[in-house]
Amino acid sequence: MSIVVVGSVAFDKVITPYGEAEKTLGGAATYFSVAASYFCPVQVVAIVGEDFGDEHAAVFEDRGVDTAGIVHAEGKTFYYGCEYSWNLNDRTTLFTELNVFERFEPDLPAAYRQAPYVFLANIDPELQLSVLEQVESPRLIAMDTMNFWIDGRLQALQRTLRRVDILVINDEEARQLADTYNLVQAAANIREMGPSAVIIKRGEHGATAFLGDEIFTVPGYPLRELADPTGAGDTFAGGLMGYLVRTGDHTPEGLRRAIVAGSVMASFCVERFSLEGITGLQDEQIATRYRAFQRLTCFGDL
Amino acid sequence: MSIVVVGSVAFDKVITPYGEAEKTLGGAATYFSVAASYFCPVQVVAIVGEDFGDEHAAVFEDRGVDTAGIVHAEGKTFYYGCEYSWNLNDRTTLFTELNVFERFEPDLPAAYRQAPYVFLANIDPELQLSVLEQVESPRLIAMDTMNFWIDGRLQALQRTLRRVDILVINDEEARQLADTYNLVQAAANIREMGPSAVIIKRGEHGATAFLGDEIFTVPGYPLRELADPTGAGDTFAGGLMGYLVRTGDHTPEGLRRAIVAGSVMASFCVERFSLEGITGLQDEQIATRYRAFQRLTCFGDL
Repeated sequence: MSIVVVGSVAFDKVITPYGEAEKTLGGAATYFSVAASYFCPVQVVAIVGEDFGDEHAAVFEDRGVDTAGIVHAEGKTFYYGCEYSWNLNDRTTLFTELNVFERFEPDLPAAYRQAPYVFLANIDPELQLSVLEQVESPRLIAMDTMNFWIDGRLQALQRTLRRVDILVINDEEARQLADTYNLVQAAANIREMGPSAVIIKRGEHGATAFLGDEIFTVPGYPLRELADPTGAGDTFAGGLMGYLVRTGDHTPEGLRRAIVAGSVMASFCVERFSLEGITGLQDEQIATRYRAFQRLTCFGDL
Repeated sequence: MSIVVVGSVAFDKVITPYGEAEKTLGGAATYFSVAASYFCPVQVVAIVGEDFGDEHAAVFEDRGVDTAGIVHAEGKTFYYGCEYSWNLNDRTTLFTELNVFERFEPDLPAAYRQAPYVFLANIDPELQLSVLEQVESPRLIAMDTMNFWIDGRLQALQRTLRRVDILVINDEEARQLADTYNLVQAAANIREMGPSAVIIKRGEHGATAFLGDEIFTVPGYPLRELADPTGAGDTFAGGLMGYLVRTGDHTPEGLRRAIVAGSVMASFCVERFSLEGITGLQDEQIATRYRAFQRLTCFGDL
């Protein structure tokens, strides 16, 4: 079983109080692919420009990610710059150069169209919908989105949501989409829009998931030092979906374990700059961190 | 086994987006006592004024709390007013009338001086220290504090901390006391000041505890509707300490269960206005909510 992810491959300029990265490989589909690749085969659909070189392709290839779906177009790759506040909790966008990404029209290679699992990273919901038109009989579809589309493409977003099993979204965006502050109420509203499961990312506070009749919460992993939060949400989704694909267990219990797997990958992501934290991991490191999450949260009977 | 709690008994005026309470019984020692009373006998040391009537004493007596340590003084009871923001996350103080509380000099009744367990609620650290001078051989001492004392009484606070086993403190105050933003680092710094365990209250995000060599995190209980956050932190401490007293298990595993018991009581507290959520509970409700915390956080092996 494998997963198709559709989203941005980009270059990032990142400034944090602890350092600076100039034009490193990033983008939602990149973080997602690398994280998911520890659990299952990944096929990525994206667009890059002429400045995307072999060294960038190698990041995917080293992780065994199938890059046949990456279109190489004339022009430059999507380039995004941001700066984090002293405590890493606030991010200011420095610039957004869409470049070739502005012309992105996902066209799935024939070999991707039987994909059993699909993840629609944060892109225009019209494009997300066009991807769903191209896959033949997916077992499970998940997606992310952002405030920009909730503001400007709500109708298209709602059409996409109706066809999706799992929405992975951050807390502020869940509140905005559901038009209510309370997250329990927000998740209930969103589930009426389509997704049977809503998984809310809460940054350093972890994630809260609404699965079947139950709520599941996992904390953020307590780290003494954080280097760079960039891509943590996409890494979370990658670990989560990769684990679901590997196990094929979509039950609420399976989703709980998948959410912890995603949290494990996100915790590795933020420990180092850009992709450094999630490339070159050993399976045993992932298993050890998963057990650390168990110790972090377990307690006995009353 | 019983616990002595020393702190404020007050009247509160509370305004939230969902309602208003005019001069209802409150104060840290009140919330603590009521919450702890579900688990063990409680002895309370406080000062009240002439406006503290039989109906207020009845709140303690109905829960079997020993009020021999409450001094009735000439003048009015401590009166505090606050207003919460639309999302209940920010609190603005409307007024603070200390009244008789300004003359509070804790004087433990003879029967309290062999107390095996002591909780020093948020009062002047000099007074906290004077209480410790009066107890003969306590098994376990825990305390709370606030930014006001960190700002203005740091040396006295540090002297008190040296004699305390457990500090229960909120996240912002932990950061201020430790002079560092990162909570893992903050807890490490604070443990060097004395307490072997540091339990950080994080409001709606739950609590993170530093116990032995391990970190334990419990989420806030997801509620569709919150009525009033007043007293939630003191209620948490009451449930936590009450459970510790009942079990006598001070190991990290015992503390984990106690922290969840505290979280259970805090979740009942915020569901209703002022003390309404934690008076009149049945043991079975507490056990059921505890199991709900287990379902909220449990997940299988990788």
